[in-house]
Amino acid sequence: MSVAEEVVSARAASYKLAVLPAETRNRGLLRMAENLLAERQAILAANNADTEAARSSGLGQSLYKRLLVTDRKLETMAESLRSVAALPDPIGKVLLRRELDDGLNLYQVRVPIGVVGVIFESRPDALVQIASLAIKSGNAVILKGGSEAKETNRILHSLFVSSLAETDPAFDGAVALVESREEIGSVLTMDGQIDLMIPRGSSELVRYIQDNTRIPVLGHADGVCHLYVDESADAEMAVALTVDSKTQYPAVCNALETLLVHESRTDLLPAIARALDGVELRGCAETRKYIDIAAAEESDWTAEYNDLVLAIRVVPSLDGAVEHINRYGSHHTDAIVTTNQARAEEFLNRIDSSSVLWNASTRFADGFRYGLGAEVGISTGKVHARGPVGLEGLTTTKYQVIGHGQVVADYADGSKEFTHRELS
Amino acid sequence: MSVAEEVVSARAASYKLAVLPAETRNRGLLRMAENLLAERQAILAANNADTEAARSSGLGQSLYKRLLVTDRKLETMAESLRSVAALPDPIGKVLLRRELDDGLNLYQVRVPIGVVGVIFESRPDALVQIASLAIKSGNAVILKGGSEAKETNRILHSLFVSSLAETDPAFDGAVALVESREEIGSVLTMDGQIDLMIPRGSSELVRYIQDNTRIPVLGHADGVCHLYVDESADAEMAVALTVDSKTQYPAVCNALETLLVHESRTDLLPAIARALDGVELRGCAETRKYIDIAAAEESDWTAEYNDLVLAIRVVPSLDGAVEHINRYGSHHTDAIVTTNQARAEEFLNRIDSSSVLWNASTRFADGFRYGLGAEVGISTGKVHARGPVGLEGLTTTKYQVIGHGQVVADYADGSKEFTHRELS
Repeated sequence: MSVAEEVVSARAASYKLAVLPAETRNRGLLRMAENLLAERQAILAANNADTEAARSSGLGQSLYKRLLVTDRKLETMAESLRSVAALPDPIGKVLLRRELDDGLNLYQVRVPIGVVGVIFESRPDALVQIASLAIKSGNAVILKGGSEAKETNRILHSLFVSSLAETDPAFDGAVALVESREEIGSVLTMDGQIDLMIPRGSSELVRYIQDNTRIPVLGHADGVCHLYVDESADAEMAVALTVDSKTQYPAVCNALETLLVHESRTDLLPAIARALDGVELRGCAETRKYIDIAAAEESDWTAEYNDLVLAIRVVPSLDGAVEHINRYGSHHTDAIVTTNQARAEEFLNRIDSSSVLWNASTRFADGFRYGLGAEVGISTGKVHARGPVGLEGLTTTKYQVIGHGQVVADYADGSKEFTHRELS
Repeated sequence: MSVAEEVVSARAASYKLAVLPAETRNRGLLRMAENLLAERQAILAANNADTEAARSSGLGQSLYKRLLVTDRKLETMAESLRSVAALPDPIGKVLLRRELDDGLNLYQVRVPIGVVGVIFESRPDALVQIASLAIKSGNAVILKGGSEAKETNRILHSLFVSSLAETDPAFDGAVALVESREEIGSVLTMDGQIDLMIPRGSSELVRYIQDNTRIPVLGHADGVCHLYVDESADAEMAVALTVDSKTQYPAVCNALETLLVHESRTDLLPAIARALDGVELRGCAETRKYIDIAAAEESDWTAEYNDLVLAIRVVPSLDGAVEHINRYGSHHTDAIVTTNQARAEEFLNRIDSSSVLWNASTRFADGFRYGLGAEVGISTGKVHARGPVGLEGLTTTKYQVIGHGQVVADYADGSKEFTHRELS
């Protein structure tokens, strides 16, 4: 089948999935969990082909680690399939019930988006995670994985297809795999057939997708996160939150990249520097009066290091912190440390970011920690979904009107009037 | 000021608007309502310059009518400003309150989008409507109107600027007007500064915007709406809903374009044709066995006539109707006429459109009729907002986390556990 045919068949599948009971969608996921473990040997063999090829082409150690599938990882994948199956059904919820007039009611109902395209890099477990979230929420999905995981993605995809086929014929065409760059090019032109693209990877990938399609794109750009140590910060808490935000897992998007310190709290800088032993620090001129570190350049304020590097700047006021963050930040996640409630609230209100925190680590900004059950991704855009995105991000709504033959002419000429009464 | 400077200053204004009390935003709108009536003469004179230029360049009658501002239209604009001011504040609502752990709470709060770009055609009242919805919801707005309404747009914009300046200095830069095609070109490149583009106009305009920007676009494509007369339709209701859906206001996007008739109800065709006196009918071969009308071509099934023209097709089943609508329709608004509840529900569930109706006219699909208070537009896209979009379409959400110094390391090593308990 050509890619265009696969997309058309995913569209057709999406209409069947939209009316499939939750129980059937869940059974498909549980079947996949079983088959994943039953086909363990074949999956590991396919993955071995990928890792061998990667090794011989000199892939770096960290990419290699992400690519490698182990027994343990397979069990985690199966576990995650079962936990997605156990989540509440995001579909069918009635968000609004309104009487428009006697015998004329309006309902707003949660429905699947339809066909979702997902582009992900290296980690083959992303395929299982994304496909399971799509099926759970009643969507068809077009998957494009990294070429370095080609063999692993193929076998995982074909297991998904057969697990769903064993469950219900309505799933036919629901999960498609696209392999080449040319194929993804034609996917991007099919804006009539695909409702949402989710690029999971670098911000270059996100921008490339945005530049080459009319399909709406859900993705995050950079994670340039800040912690602001306010005038009235608790000293011990300021140090502890800096350490956790920066070092608990520096490679991820909600890790701290720039620390802002109120000019009256420069006394904390030596303790912070000591606590961040092993972290490369780059400071503004004011910071360097108190600790002996490298000079930060303008480019450090917008840098997403994703590594054990931290930029530090002294700011004259809460205003200065807010302005710095709204100007240089990426609207992802920013935190304030203070004992002053009024200043905390001002910070929470004025910072234009998807997550804002008061006296807590930036690392909490995450779908699992927020209790969303499963994470589709983190959106720094402001439309559709913002911040950690759960299953709801794969849904939309539909208005349903149920009447008894009412016509608009009666309301236009004034012979009837709307009641607009909320129903319980 | 260059356009880029205006956008930067709108961004700065958006941060002030986001924390401005609802009362101040409302006062700005009421001041504009007063000034609009006080400056009546100057507005009519500016509009006269536009209509004179339009007349001499041979603009069509219907465009001329849309362009013309009368005393009556000015009063309607002032009225609409007052009614937007009276709407409930869409900002600040808490959508989710969740305890993550003891002393660590998550809140999801409704906030303004930020900076919204709106492109609209000919009708100068659109400027007033859009700017008022933006200000009401705490957003800064970049407006681009049709060049034929240049003088009228200028004076309305400058009145908005002065009315807001008289109300509060925080509004400075909140409403910008962009006039030329080149200027809109640079607006479209400013995806870091503008959060949402709303093109209100032809589907060509929408596609042009989608093709030329990374900024998310909220807009509707075509309104190819259907009414399906089911096997068990009430005859009289079928005729009445067809007439209202097609003729009550044929120029708008929720007007009927294709009538589908179940093959067992072809007996209704003559009565429908008689009731649609003055409407040009184009039918499929089966339809033409019962009424003497022109033959429909394939292109008629996707046509948005926006005029007194109707395509009619006989379908063999509910399945056939659903497939026709999901294939040829524009996912805007579609209705079924039937007395059979099970078939109605199947239709409502299976049709992939922003509004689906049972025994009601397609013309009800509208923000005012749905009780949304004000309409930003109608979205046929599936992300962010779908169907008639009210003030909520100009908002997004923000997660706020309030803690007492919690760090993620404690949850990663298992020494603490999340409670994830909903708060009331």
